[in-house]
Amino acid sequence: MLLTADTTTLGEALRTALDGPFAEPRARGRVEFPAEHLLRDPEQPVAEAREWVLTRLRELSDAGFGAAGVPVSAADHGSPEDAVMAFELLAHGDLSVLIKSGVQFGLFGGAIANLGTAWHHDTFLPALTRLELLGCFAMTELGHGSDVASLETTIVYDPATDEFEVHSPSPAATKAYIGNAGRHGSMAVVFGQLVVDHVRHGVHAVLVPIRDEAGRDLPGVTTGDQGHKGGLVGVDNGTIVFDHVRVPRRMLLDRYGGVDEQGRYASVIESPSRRFFTMLGTLVRGRVCISAGAGIAARRGISIATRYALKRRQFPAPGRRDGVLLLDYLTHQRRLLPLLARAYALGFAQNDLNRLLVKVQGTAGSTDRDQRELETFAAGLKAVSTGFANTALQSCREACGGAGFMSENRLTALRSDVDIFATFEGDNTVLLQLVTKALLTDYRQLWGELDRAGVVQATARVVGETVAERTAAGVVLERLVRAARRQPDGLTMVDRRWQALMFTERERHSLESLARRMRVAARTDGDQFEAFNRLGEHVLFVARAHLERRILESFVTGIDACADPEARDLLGKVCSLYALTSLNADRAWFLEHGKMSTARSKAIDEQLEQLCRELRPHALPLVEGLGIPEEWLGAAMLDG
Amino acid sequence: MLLTADTTTLGEALRTALDGPFAEPRARGRVEFPAEHLLRDPEQPVAEAREWVLTRLRELSDAGFGAAGVPVSAADHGSPEDAVMAFELLAHGDLSVLIKSGVQFGLFGGAIANLGTAWHHDTFLPALTRLELLGCFAMTELGHGSDVASLETTIVYDPATDEFEVHSPSPAATKAYIGNAGRHGSMAVVFGQLVVDHVRHGVHAVLVPIRDEAGRDLPGVTTGDQGHKGGLVGVDNGTIVFDHVRVPRRMLLDRYGGVDEQGRYASVIESPSRRFFTMLGTLVRGRVCISAGAGIAARRGISIATRYALKRRQFPAPGRRDGVLLLDYLTHQRRLLPLLARAYALGFAQNDLNRLLVKVQGTAGSTDRDQRELETFAAGLKAVSTGFANTALQSCREACGGAGFMSENRLTALRSDVDIFATFEGDNTVLLQLVTKALLTDYRQLWGELDRAGVVQATARVVGETVAERTAAGVVLERLVRAARRQPDGLTMVDRRWQALMFTERERHSLESLARRMRVAARTDGDQFEAFNRLGEHVLFVARAHLERRILESFVTGIDACADPEARDLLGKVCSLYALTSLNADRAWFLEHGKMSTARSKAIDEQLEQLCRELRPHALPLVEGLGIPEEWLGAAMLDG
Repeated sequence: MLLTADTTTLGEALRTALDGPFAEPRARGRVEFPAEHLLRDPEQPVAEAREWVLTRLRELSDAGFGAAGVPVSAADHGSPEDAVMAFELLAHGDLSVLIKSGVQFGLFGGAIANLGTAWHHDTFLPALTRLELLGCFAMTELGHGSDVASLETTIVYDPATDEFEVHSPSPAATKAYIGNAGRHGSMAVVFGQLVVDHVRHGVHAVLVPIRDEAGRDLPGVTTGDQGHKGGLVGVDNGTIVFDHVRVPRRMLLDRYGGVDEQGRYASVIESPSRRFFTMLGTLVRGRVCISAGAGIAARRGISIATRYALKRRQFPAPGRRDGVLLLDYLTHQRRLLPLLARAYALGFAQNDLNRLLVKVQGTAGSTDRDQRELETFAAGLKAVSTGFANTALQSCREACGGAGFMSENRLTALRSDVDIFATFEGDNTVLLQLVTKALLTDYRQLWGELDRAGVVQATARVVGETVAERTAAGVVLERLVRAARRQPDGLTMVDRRWQALMFTERERHSLESLARRMRVAARTDGDQFEAFNRLGEHVLFVARAHLERRILESFVTGIDACADPEARDLLGKVCSLYALTSLNADRAWFLEHGKMSTARSKAIDEQLEQLCRELRPHALPLVEGLGIPEEWLGAAMLDG
Repeated sequence: MLLTADTTTLGEALRTALDGPFAEPRARGRVEFPAEHLLRDPEQPVAEAREWVLTRLRELSDAGFGAAGVPVSAADHGSPEDAVMAFELLAHGDLSVLIKSGVQFGLFGGAIANLGTAWHHDTFLPALTRLELLGCFAMTELGHGSDVASLETTIVYDPATDEFEVHSPSPAATKAYIGNAGRHGSMAVVFGQLVVDHVRHGVHAVLVPIRDEAGRDLPGVTTGDQGHKGGLVGVDNGTIVFDHVRVPRRMLLDRYGGVDEQGRYASVIESPSRRFFTMLGTLVRGRVCISAGAGIAARRGISIATRYALKRRQFPAPGRRDGVLLLDYLTHQRRLLPLLARAYALGFAQNDLNRLLVKVQGTAGSTDRDQRELETFAAGLKAVSTGFANTALQSCREACGGAGFMSENRLTALRSDVDIFATFEGDNTVLLQLVTKALLTDYRQLWGELDRAGVVQATARVVGETVAERTAAGVVLERLVRAARRQPDGLTMVDRRWQALMFTERERHSLESLARRMRVAARTDGDQFEAFNRLGEHVLFVARAHLERRILESFVTGIDACADPEARDLLGKVCSLYALTSLNADRAWFLEHGKMSTARSKAIDEQLEQLCRELRPHALPLVEGLGIPEEWLGAAMLDG
């Protein structure tokens, strides 16, 4: 399917800029993606929805959009770029199809590819990628979601038979919310505590067949269907309980730890904690994909609501006898245009995240530091993107009034489906805590010595720069910050140097003060849990401040890479709208910490208004730049 | 069904306090309400859901919860208190049943009762209240939602036959999103432009039969089924198009304007604009009820999420080997406890709104000023309550993780159903604009003279007091404000006097500055629409500031009326949590306008944390105080 012929030239230039380093595969995807029957009838009952989704997944997979990028043998390394591009494309259709694909190829396939070894790859990947073997990623338990280290399921080696016994020792150990477990899965990657000769070696993963060809539970396995959910109704989530289920030794995914022929545990990584985090680290692609998918879902909603606001009139006004276009109301602009700006910002950030994934998981070679950076950025951007998708889609629904509530206009299904994105692949609050933890670790490593010498204050400026320099994009931003420091008071609010300074200061200052409070908490004589517990909101603030700065960096480098002068100029304004919206939300913090004058703080609102007015005439090209072909939106109210 | 026997004494005292002046009927309702089969299977397909909902509505109505309070004849005035109490109770069950009841009794019945005269009352109300006559409230058109004055449907008097001809002159005139129009309605109250002898008399309402007994469209009527929606799937919303449909003259609801036997238009209200607003004003009960229903929906979600957080543990910690209870995490407290506090605040405000409705629509007698105050408060509280229900339910879903997404735990259906509450019975943004418009009108009336003399600045203090004194509760708050002004710097943040001062100042200052900007805009030589358009965000700020102050007033008087010392003490803290959360969200504004010192602004966060810590041990009684019997919650994860 081709793009509508009447996309504006400016819209095309914006789209190319936002597609960035992935412009070529994305443009190809828009041409090649079989977009017919893309959207599911929201009225389908659960059973029918699940079969519809599986059928669509088979068709899309046959057409090359599904298992794309997933390796098919031990000799094949797969392509992370192809995988993310395919996932993004699927996000333009029914999100149950997207998530079912993610469960099958990303989680089930990804676990086998990343945690397994040659035998697993050659034995299972071919059938898996052809959708002949449908499987589950059985990590979460009823009693243990975010806390993977505390999983209760046991995987006990029995030397007598050279088998593993997989068991759920309590109701809380029930595997829960597992995709493909409700109906279609015939095998599961089961995460549990590996026990060899009475010694616990921490969480490992083992392949366990769960259903026979007729779909009946295998002996010792009890699956449960979790039925109807708040969204993603076409994905068959379910529970799995294991009653001393036995599998041969080679079913353990043993890339990072396994049992040898003598029945001894052996691992390439000595530290159990490092092993645990290394294993989880290989699964980072899931978060990258979910972040990308949420980004597309948000863009779909924003495209629908903005295009509607360019059609729908309400209330006659002086000089506007037929009524005012919704998007001509300032309140409506203030509702939609900052969402549009943030969608651009997150799109540029996603490009950088995708690029980092390709660097780490591709063939080019990367460092441990790249891997850590990827994990932190993926965790953070996943939290920000999915949080944004939820609030943006709700705003879009409300901005379309009653029409927005009709299923035929697609917004409510998008909203319901994207809801759980805030929870799966890592609860957003927990992910933000991870981000801050990583920042504190870096901070400690870099400045531990100086700190003990009591000179931490003096190094504040340097710390800020070091934090900012951790990424390539950071260099660009740091240059802006340096320039800003030379003339802090002479810059306008739309000057990128001033924005960069504010974003960097917000992160630096909040991180430093958190580090200080952390040290105090660590020295408490009282309840240590409570001492750290009190820092909870501060921890989240630091994570958000860091991510906003990271996103601004991506936006700035994305603009630098844009060759079209008109698009470049417009993107500059979009970036300012993003940046000032972010600063506006935290302006109390800036005032409280003496980083902004009262006059400037008060003036932000007017500047936001001015930017909305300037962007308003370009609303259509800006929507086109988001890259969702109009005919893919499928919203009845946009027809005719 | 009785309350669980083990409700704490403190919980009961809190419930009694929050029930306030309606403690007696609400307690009775909790005992008498037939709560079995209260919750709908979320998997029901549309057709089945609609029949289930109608069946439930008939049962509930037979049991006295449905048409309660709706008059059954011209001699009967109905009871607004009974109507609101019944609506609140229905909000504890499936929200489609609630809204179907609202459509039938509140809108269809309310229009006939309020806009009709004796013949309409005696002819239609008995069958209507017995659910033998199901009807629609056909106001909204595809092209005209919030802008009722611009409705296109015409109601033209034909003297030749002494009939009205009802007609939809364009596709935009299609009646849309109309409850009961999709399937069950056999008659509609149709709003349109009344034309008599070629003269337009503005919007009036006429009764038009739309379906025969077999459910077929009557000649000239074309109904459409809008099918699946983002929520409230059990309500049959639809479209209606009229093609020169004729009804006898007496079908016009002619309380405020009609055609006499000589074919002349006659009205008890001369000004067409006053007539229009008077007619709409009689329909205010709908907004009061929607606000109340949203309040209950939010309380259900908050009850579920808080009770879950008191059961579910995650991550072991020092001294907490079995894991930490979710509600012991400060981040979780900061997520849920402010919602709980705001639910109390809105509950007290709803009591005051209900009381005002009873005063205006009951038999006690009231003034025009009471009516205006009711309309403004209903518009505002509807916007605030429904906005809150949406954000609160989403937070509650996320706070329950994957479990929150399972339909069996009820949060997602509540969230989906309540979504459209933000739009129907008045779009929230438009309602907030109405509130500010009313405040500006009062302001102008009171100070217009002085203003022209240029002394408006000097009267600032007095204006603030006058605004605050408009309600009885305002007197209480004003006393606090006066006390605060005597010693503004010596008060703590939990001192109600300081809070009252801040709330009042926020409203007064923002209203005054808006009034100034309005005057400037009115004098513009340029585009007048744009001049006012620019004030959009300011207008919304004023409305919110006003409503927050109004809500605080209600909270303060609610505490004053609480006889139980322990409950009273705890409510004081809950009120502070509400008030400081509100101030915290606007602290940039207070800093920018010199109303708060930087030190105090920074300290709010710590005070919020402290309040959460103090309230945490009382979380269960506080939930009980919200008044939702635990067994009515129906969330599977709370069992056992």
